[in-house]
Amino acid sequence: MFRALVTAGAALKPRTTGWVRAMASYQLLVPPPEALQKPLSVPNRLLLGPGPSNLPPRVLAAGGLQMIGHMHKEMYQIMDEIKQGIQYLFQTKNRLTLAISGSGHCALEAALFNVLEPGDSFLVGANGIWGLRAADIGERIGARVHPMVKEPGGHYTLQEVEEGLAQHKPVLLFLTQGESSTGVLQPLDGYGELCHRYKCLLLVDSVASLGGTPIYMDQQGIDILYSGSQKVLNAPPGTSLISFSDQARNKIDARKTKPCSFYLDMKWLANIWGCEDQPRMYHHTTPVISLYSLRESLAVLAQQGLENSWRQHREVTAYLHGCLQGLGLQLFVKDPALRLPTVTTVAVPAGYDWRDIVSYVMNHFDIEITGGLGPSVGKVLRIGLLGCNATRENVDRVVEALKEALQRCPRNKL
Amino acid sequence: MFRALVTAGAALKPRTTGWVRAMASYQLLVPPPEALQKPLSVPNRLLLGPGPSNLPPRVLAAGGLQMIGHMHKEMYQIMDEIKQGIQYLFQTKNRLTLAISGSGHCALEAALFNVLEPGDSFLVGANGIWGLRAADIGERIGARVHPMVKEPGGHYTLQEVEEGLAQHKPVLLFLTQGESSTGVLQPLDGYGELCHRYKCLLLVDSVASLGGTPIYMDQQGIDILYSGSQKVLNAPPGTSLISFSDQARNKIDARKTKPCSFYLDMKWLANIWGCEDQPRMYHHTTPVISLYSLRESLAVLAQQGLENSWRQHREVTAYLHGCLQGLGLQLFVKDPALRLPTVTTVAVPAGYDWRDIVSYVMNHFDIEITGGLGPSVGKVLRIGLLGCNATRENVDRVVEALKEALQRCPRNKL
Ligand SMILES: Cc1ncc(COP(=O)(O)O)c(C=O)c1O
Ligand SMILES: Cc1ncc(COP(=O)(O)O)c(C=O)c1O
Repeated sequence: MFRALVTAGAALKPRTTGWVRAMASYQLLVPPPEALQKPLSVPNRLLLGPGPSNLPPRVLAAGGLQMIGHMHKEMYQIMDEIKQGIQYLFQTKNRLTLAISGSGHCALEAALFNVLEPGDSFLVGANGIWGLRAADIGERIGARVHPMVKEPGGHYTLQEVEEGLAQHKPVLLFLTQGESSTGVLQPLDGYGELCHRYKCLLLVDSVASLGGTPIYMDQQGIDILYSGSQKVLNAPPGTSLISFSDQARNKIDARKTKPCSFYLDMKWLANIWGCEDQPRMYHHTTPVISLYSLRESLAVLAQQGLENSWRQHREVTAYLHGCLQGLGLQLFVKDPALRLPTVTTVAVPAGYDWRDIVSYVMNHFDIEITGGLGPSVGKVLRIGLLGCNATRENVDRVVEALKEALQRCPRNKL
Repeated sequence: MFRALVTAGAALKPRTTGWVRAMASYQLLVPPPEALQKPLSVPNRLLLGPGPSNLPPRVLAAGGLQMIGHMHKEMYQIMDEIKQGIQYLFQTKNRLTLAISGSGHCALEAALFNVLEPGDSFLVGANGIWGLRAADIGERIGARVHPMVKEPGGHYTLQEVEEGLAQHKPVLLFLTQGESSTGVLQPLDGYGELCHRYKCLLLVDSVASLGGTPIYMDQQGIDILYSGSQKVLNAPPGTSLISFSDQARNKIDARKTKPCSFYLDMKWLANIWGCEDQPRMYHHTTPVISLYSLRESLAVLAQQGLENSWRQHREVTAYLHGCLQGLGLQLFVKDPALRLPTVTTVAVPAGYDWRDIVSYVMNHFDIEITGGLGPSVGKVLRIGLLGCNATRENVDRVVEALKEALQRCPRNKL
């Protein structure tokens, strides 16, 4: 197809400015890597950690489709459908509802970058890793951050939140509905109303809980809600979901400074996601294929129906809890009403190194379960039953694997 | 599978704190969207705009694979292979070389957020939209931005850059190698050396040029180089490539403030990408499936070889240029040595509305070409021949389509 080989260097380089000397010519000093000569191969894994989860057939199929342009009308249609799917999952009528071109952390930054300005008071429920991350980001952008630090396993009562609101007069409160590092389900009834009485906006992380347990953004008075694609939704990681109430939007509109990020500037994102009545303009190239997959994952959940999905997670996770207790294991969260129906935390059984158990289950069964994360490291094992992975069959598989691990892993090593 | 339907509301809600009143119970007020009942369907498009481009079979196949965990050893292996692929494409031995979990703009922010601190002087070549975007982001993070604004079609000589360096004493200079909004190829020989004489780091955007025209990061003294996945690489949008020289890394290490973003904090990203000798820790969930695709796209290009790919783009684009001139069209960039071998800009032919031509080609041939972008809107049509799309057959198809469009579209409408 190509007639002659030319050598790299002078012949290929632009010869335009007088300044460019007749250089000796550059050479290809870094050779093509050998590892890339081999075909890609991916093992089969049952992903029963706290996410990502496995992809069901429709989502898999979407990932193998051909590209279209990020600004083609068919793509805008897909984006509109994604918005509607998010509105259903979040139970919101907010116009400013869209997918972020990044993971859950990116959605958290989208929330904080847009809503907070330097000097703003920011109250953070920090009962696990996610609140610590929110506090870290808040500090980076110059907010006055007030973390309400709790031991892993704790949650926030309305009374505790009210004390924080009264003391720190924050413009924003962060709570995690599904604290996946500790297994705690944070109650949300009444928190929005309470915040609003104190002129504070309520930001909720539902990355690990959305679709697995009820949430009603509008009725619960949540001002900013975000979630991930790779948990109950069973889509690949790389996109996330977010929505803003009118009050949150007003706070953004009243900013005196621009958000530090252009990529996550909600004024631009509102435009490309068609959340306003302006013609859409190029902002960045959206992750077209990931959006196909996200669209399909939303369609699957919409067809199943939220109530069915909630019940599935509650029932299958209750079954898991029974089995674990049958093995003599202790659930880390004592109060059953505070246990997350998606990610279960088990106290690391006495005498074991959690790493041994996790590795055993992976190496002998190709099943992922994980240890703790951040403040819960060393304290817990975590088992996630997310979306299509939340089946009794999978519970049986992981319980079988755990049983064997408990028999075979060294005890009293520590 | 599930025995009985329960109604949403009280029964599903946590009943934990005394504060939660026996609420009437929430209801599902937002129904599942009808649009999501229909299966996803995606049209066939030949993407000959400035990107994204079409996906070749290996990349398509990778997109349809099943998930593994973002922290499984097989995933670290894939990430290592991606790093090596980027080192080959960039011709660099930099250890701090990795993929960003976001689009090209996200890589630009990763560069600026990490390298610049508030008050730093930042010199920007702004000869099209990309420099304007870099300037915008620089301002958001409090840098003192000095844009060297040029008309679309312009480029920067060493002399002009030296004047800017002498005048503004910047810590960082931004140049775009492939200015895809104007079709200009910015020469890069000697610019790194010049910057270093002025104690300035050189940041280059090669999103629209990498793989299509030579670049030698180390030999050309480029300190930070980034590129995209969705252009010559023919991978889906959503990931991008970046590398930092030791000097750039030193500047990051010497920061007095944390970057405003946690998601893009290079200290964390260096860790999860194995660019240091520490065990890898969880930072964010990387876009596993997009990384499969990126790995495959790097493998395809590594197997073809950079020189072959450069020649392919040069020759096929030269063929396009001849055909366009044969139609009586004028290339927007006058100096042949400054014409980008990936994205070609054509002056909008007199009397036509560029929108008519673009729509005609899309509606009658399912081929994407685009108008201008930012400062070049209304001035140019843009035709991209990127990676697997850079074939003589595709040139023939788009030239045929353009020929018909010129016959059928209204003239002297404007
Ligand atoms: C509750 C919660 N919030 C936030 C995140 C962060 O999401 P990502 O890893 O996609 O950035 C996770 C991920 O595990 C999570 O479980
Ligand atoms: C030269 C150049 N820089 C940056 C970008 C931005 O990349 P993205 O749209 O992936 O954010 C593009 C995209 O077209 C580009 O052509």
